Amino acid sequence: MIKRILIIVFGIALWFSPRPAELGPQEWHLFAIFITTIFSVVFNAFNVLPASILALAITILTGTLPPADAFSGFSEGFILLILVAFLIAKAVVKSGLGNRIALLMISRFGHSTLGLGYSLLVTDLMIAPAFPSNTARSGVLFPVIFSLAESNGSYPDTPSAKKIGSFLMFVSMYGLSLSSGLWLTAMAANPVGAAIAGEWGVDINFGNWFLAALPPTLIAAALVPFVLYKVFPPEMKKTPHAPENAKKKLHEIGKMNRHEIITLIVFVIMVTAWAMPSSMGIDRATIAFLGLGILMVTDVFTMADMRKEGEALATFIWFAILYTLSSYLNKLGFMGYIGQQLSHHLSGFSWPVVYTVLITAYVLIHYLFVSQSAQLLALYGVFLSAGIATGVPPTLLALMLLFATNFFSVLTPQASSCNVLFAGSGYLKNSMVYKLGGLVTLLNLLIFMIFGTLWILLIF
Amino acid sequence: MIKRILIIVFGIALWFSPRPAELGPQEWHLFAIFITTIFSVVFNAFNVLPASILALAITILTGTLPPADAFSGFSEGFILLILVAFLIAKAVVKSGLGNRIALLMISRFGHSTLGLGYSLLVTDLMIAPAFPSNTARSGVLFPVIFSLAESNGSYPDTPSAKKIGSFLMFVSMYGLSLSSGLWLTAMAANPVGAAIAGEWGVDINFGNWFLAALPPTLIAAALVPFVLYKVFPPEMKKTPHAPENAKKKLHEIGKMNRHEIITLIVFVIMVTAWAMPSSMGIDRATIAFLGLGILMVTDVFTMADMRKEGEALATFIWFAILYTLSSYLNKLGFMGYIGQQLSHHLSGFSWPVVYTVLITAYVLIHYLFVSQSAQLLALYGVFLSAGIATGVPPTLLALMLLFATNFFSVLTPQASSCNVLFAGSGYLKNSMVYKLGGLVTLLNLLIFMIFGTLWILLIF
Repeated sequence: MIKRILIIVFGIALWFSPRPAELGPQEWHLFAIFITTIFSVVFNAFNVLPASILALAITILTGTLPPADAFSGFSEGFILLILVAFLIAKAVVKSGLGNRIALLMISRFGHSTLGLGYSLLVTDLMIAPAFPSNTARSGVLFPVIFSLAESNGSYPDTPSAKKIGSFLMFVSMYGLSLSSGLWLTAMAANPVGAAIAGEWGVDINFGNWFLAALPPTLIAAALVPFVLYKVFPPEMKKTPHAPENAKKKLHEIGKMNRHEIITLIVFVIMVTAWAMPSSMGIDRATIAFLGLGILMVTDVFTMADMRKEGEALATFIWFAILYTLSSYLNKLGFMGYIGQQLSHHLSGFSWPVVYTVLITAYVLIHYLFVSQSAQLLALYGVFLSAGIATGVPPTLLALMLLFATNFFSVLTPQASSCNVLFAGSGYLKNSMVYKLGGLVTLLNLLIFMIFGTLWILLIF
Repeated sequence: MIKRILIIVFGIALWFSPRPAELGPQEWHLFAIFITTIFSVVFNAFNVLPASILALAITILTGTLPPADAFSGFSEGFILLILVAFLIAKAVVKSGLGNRIALLMISRFGHSTLGLGYSLLVTDLMIAPAFPSNTARSGVLFPVIFSLAESNGSYPDTPSAKKIGSFLMFVSMYGLSLSSGLWLTAMAANPVGAAIAGEWGVDINFGNWFLAALPPTLIAAALVPFVLYKVFPPEMKKTPHAPENAKKKLHEIGKMNRHEIITLIVFVIMVTAWAMPSSMGIDRATIAFLGLGILMVTDVFTMADMRKEGEALATFIWFAILYTLSSYLNKLGFMGYIGQQLSHHLSGFSWPVVYTVLITAYVLIHYLFVSQSAQLLALYGVFLSAGIATGVPPTLLALMLLFATNFFSVLTPQASSCNVLFAGSGYLKNSMVYKLGGLVTLLNLLIFMIFGTLWILLIF
């Protein structure tokens, strides 16, 4: 209760405090609403859903945004993709297919929970270049992890969540922050960033991107899951008999049933369509709707199943609202202002200082962004030009900012659309995601700034 | 299964069949998709949710509409209003406030189920002039009816639904079709229609509207619930001891608890804001979001409650999709084409024939429309001008088309946004709504065409 009063007082104080001359009242008020909402979730004063709903109401009632703009996130394609992927994941689990894949994984890598975590991460790193949408990729991984948890007696929204589910969910969410940065084609905005870098004469292609990203990515992939295992340990650690038991269970469940086969076919169609380049013009959310429609008319996912999916609705609402507020903060010029201020204050310092400050600031500013692509579009060019003007090697800065655009994706529950399924799974508390997300993003930053920087300077 | 194959064959045949020269392929294909979807629900081949989802996917994948247009319904204010009203209704029920109001009503009118039905209808007719949004009004009535049903042991999605809940839900949904047409200010589009009529020299104001609408509305209000009672009987009919028991229970539950008081305050605030004219600039959906946010931070409606609300999500998805498809059918000019064809074929007939055909056609065409306002905007002017040109008395035609815009609102589950809460309540099957909706709309048409026409000719 005290927390709640403090956060409300903070919000009101920020609203009425003097604003920089360059910013209009609209930008400033939207900033006050947005940052107060984020803080209220970070400090656990409010759950993210009521906090977002109230933020939306206040934004409209104060005239900060008109209703049509403030509601626009609800019809964004990639937000609908998350909603539908959420439902499809439940169908994959319910059909038994998720359980089968999970048992297959356990029979190979299931000696320990940490082993399972690593095997999920490696899978993600390897399938990533074929998935230009990391949101779609999270929709592929999520049902498998969900089934892995449930087949080990670890259920969402219960104390058993901590047994194994919470750990695997977070490791996989973390894994996406690495897999998206390892390949030029593993995240939608990567090629956009490469194109912008081209305007500064930096040539980034599939090959040199991968070469530059590989060493720091491998170091992080090896190190960070182990750190998480220590600071956020699963209750169930060693499972020496799990592979054997899994094999027995696989034998027991026998051949695939009708629901599993339908789900597998739908899943393969969706994954194939999702993996296609977006230039083919196939809308990803539409593919998800098609898949869900087929799963429903074949009774794999029924109306009775649908009635239990209030969590999907909750996630859809809060993510759509936060995304919209953040995107208008950007559209109204607030983000650009921050970038300009920063580059203005950096002139006169040596390039390693400028480089370090720019990358660190770029990562920290991501607390304000809901979506990796939005930040890249808003600030990548500004930061690149500011750094190059003060002498930072262009290729180094261009690549590191692009890597940061991916490795900061686990900073907050809404830092990337690929987090949302995990954050809304019922296995992770939002306040926990903020804490662990901050920690592993810091580790990513250190690993990439030290090993990544040296490696890039060595090879280019 | 045979039904499904037939409906798909029908859809494909319609898609490839020759189209009128005035219509482009886009309009024709959208019409084929939309009408196939509606038929598949009418004939119970598919549930409305998967049917709508597949319709959306097909619309986009065939290039009939671009994704951004096809998704636009998800961020429509009044569709979000329905979604949030759905959740608030559950909070009203859960807090105990709905039960208290229901017990109060039973203690007065609860001798019979039919008596309860009439008392709900009278309440609606009386509060209607203060609610310019019948969607908002349905959000006020719905939780009370839900509580009335549950306090009589009649639960959604169970066989007990037919005990009393199904009957009360349908009677109240029907009641909205009358209450919205009784007052100029009881439905958002009524004043718009009155303004259009003014362009043809017909003066419609609050007083003469009410005077003209009163006799046919009272006849329908008295007659139709009784007909429904015969053709769609509640399993529980006479309840002679119910008022006494309700009084006892009211005594037992004692004073209002904290949750009830908070809910009452929120509800009064929302109802007050919803009842204000839209010229005050208060967005109705935003008011609903505000109310839901308050109910959540005060723990009246919790995240655990939210997780059960998959039905709200299902309703939101199918209604948003059907609304969007219908509105684009209108935007692309398909609806206007129908209206022109009709007026073209009517020249040469005597005015009573023209009048009867126009009103009947206007009602039947509503099978294609999702939203009363959309049809009024698309066709009211066309029909009015066609009728006046062939000699129909302008005031009669202007008023009757406006009344029809309201009394056809119960034709299909999606015929009006004010139906959606009831249709998605779990008390009514969609195929049943189509059957009963057709029946009571026919009764409305007969009552208004006979008594309404004579009365209007008498007084004007």
